[in-house]
Amino acid sequence: MDLAKGSQAPQESLDTDIESFFETAPPLRDDVDISRKLGEFIELNSPSTGKRIVCVTSGGTTVPLEQRCVRYIDNFSSGHRGAASTMYFLEAGYAVIFLHRRGTCLPYCRSLPEDSLLECFELTESSSVQVRQSHSEDVKRAIGYHHAAVEQGLLLKLPFTTIFEYLQILRMVATSMKSLGSHGMFYLAAAVSDFYVPWESMVEHKIQSASGPLDMRLAQVPKMLSMLRKEWDPMAFCISFKNVDFPFVTQQLETDSNILLKKADMALRKYKMHMVVANELLTRNEEVIVVTSTGRVIVHRDKNEADADVEKPIIKLVAERHSTYIQESCSTN
Amino acid sequence: MDLAKGSQAPQESLDTDIESFFETAPPLRDDVDISRKLGEFIELNSPSTGKRIVCVTSGGTTVPLEQRCVRYIDNFSSGHRGAASTMYFLEAGYAVIFLHRRGTCLPYCRSLPEDSLLECFELTESSSVQVRQSHSEDVKRAIGYHHAAVEQGLLLKLPFTTIFEYLQILRMVATSMKSLGSHGMFYLAAAVSDFYVPWESMVEHKIQSASGPLDMRLAQVPKMLSMLRKEWDPMAFCISFKNVDFPFVTQQLETDSNILLKKADMALRKYKMHMVVANELLTRNEEVIVVTSTGRVIVHRDKNEADADVEKPIIKLVAERHSTYIQESCSTN
Repeated sequence: MDLAKGSQAPQESLDTDIESFFETAPPLRDDVDISRKLGEFIELNSPSTGKRIVCVTSGGTTVPLEQRCVRYIDNFSSGHRGAASTMYFLEAGYAVIFLHRRGTCLPYCRSLPEDSLLECFELTESSSVQVRQSHSEDVKRAIGYHHAAVEQGLLLKLPFTTIFEYLQILRMVATSMKSLGSHGMFYLAAAVSDFYVPWESMVEHKIQSASGPLDMRLAQVPKMLSMLRKEWDPMAFCISFKNVDFPFVTQQLETDSNILLKKADMALRKYKMHMVVANELLTRNEEVIVVTSTGRVIVHRDKNEADADVEKPIIKLVAERHSTYIQESCSTN
Repeated sequence: MDLAKGSQAPQESLDTDIESFFETAPPLRDDVDISRKLGEFIELNSPSTGKRIVCVTSGGTTVPLEQRCVRYIDNFSSGHRGAASTMYFLEAGYAVIFLHRRGTCLPYCRSLPEDSLLECFELTESSSVQVRQSHSEDVKRAIGYHHAAVEQGLLLKLPFTTIFEYLQILRMVATSMKSLGSHGMFYLAAAVSDFYVPWESMVEHKIQSASGPLDMRLAQVPKMLSMLRKEWDPMAFCISFKNVDFPFVTQQLETDSNILLKKADMALRKYKMHMVVANELLTRNEEVIVVTSTGRVIVHRDKNEADADVEKPIIKLVAERHSTYIQESCSTN
């Protein structure tokens, strides 16, 4: 989660940067609708029902380079981690607000192929639509579990594309979840842009190509994690992600692992996260290191179990720590 | 089609730029497979069978900013024009090589919703998968027509993501289609990046965020249209696109229309296109202006016909002009 990256700006300047980010961002088109959905979802799954709610963020944000957006900078992320984690959170009894990049992987859909509708279905001789035998189980699973979660009011999907949409919706979710106290959780797996072009300094029309090279200057996206912890939803249990892509040179692995862990420790302290999940690009589907204030835990997938995901033990650990956190919060208050 | 943009570089320097672009581009992983598919497709639809082949390009290309691509610049394009045009080309008797951005709109799929598999299907009480009544006709149409075109060997789908993949595959398609002479066509509707970061000057790992802003310098993508016309496939009939996004200030409309048409004329002459389709962002689904060496034709959708697309009369005009071109080429030779 790139929001957690270091900035040397003092708090006052950070607050001004954040204020200015939101003031100049293009307003959400569907904020009334999102607000209504959030209100209903949170009421339905309030602590009095015995439920907990987690907001899982997933996929990459885009940074428009032009106001009538033709060109934009994007952060690649398939959304597999967020989608798989959502599945295990639902299994663990959580209600999930799935704040995801439009078009990325949805919960229970990981096994489906690209262009899934065309690939998974065919017409019979009598021109009725039928699922192809080879994809039948995957399709049944996707449709069955996904629809059930939505219909039971346990899964709320909120899509975003730009960094502006992402941060505005995240703020809406967080301020709505504030009422949940320690029962709320943020699991921030999205790949959020570090740099952006402030909306008002952006050219209105398509950048015209001239004969020379194109020079661009991008501003840093202000670090919103501290705002989430300090103002939007101070009692929520918060998990962020730190990623590193490793060179293939083996002797550097340890060095880079150490850098990664130092960054994770820093994010934990600086942004007051409860847990930071440290990923290495090459091994992220096999194991991760979860950093907490009491130590580091290596979590790896169960190789004895067919189709076991690393997300399964991650969510188990996260849910356990969340339980402890809720107990501690209740006994303190 | 942004490839057609003006550059003042002399021919020799352009050739060096193009050579250097291909020499330094990351090699295609599946070039052997693409080459085999192209060979089979072109043989199956060779002029001796009475067929014509068109390569339709569709969707936007990405420009990676890091070699292990996390961040990239993207050109927004839904791919609707390319997908709709492909449909009408198939109706007009063409075989189509659909060179499209992975994940964008596919032919016959325009009416399907986002996340179409989840939206269009449901489980029955006996847990079998069925299409929802509300989407039944759209799904039947998509699956029926799409699969029929692929199975009859009339539609070859080749996906790309980056500018490197796009231009390398386009070159493979063009050199393979050279044998078709005037029976081949290129309908270049893709939104191709104007600027890129040369692969070798790219940082290997993720750009680290520091405390300051990020400065970037991007090089111009060399103009490949002239190479297509001069070397790759000199006899093919070529159509490119010029786009303009208009300000909402009415009095500027005429001025901007003129700029657009001048650019289209320039592309026609400079890159020796046979037709250039000039689009205005706000009206592009209603009408376009097709510029040819003999004059301009305004093409608009038939408002009396339900669901009529502007692509229908565009393809009708293009196919007619292609017929004339084939006749003229044959009588000349």
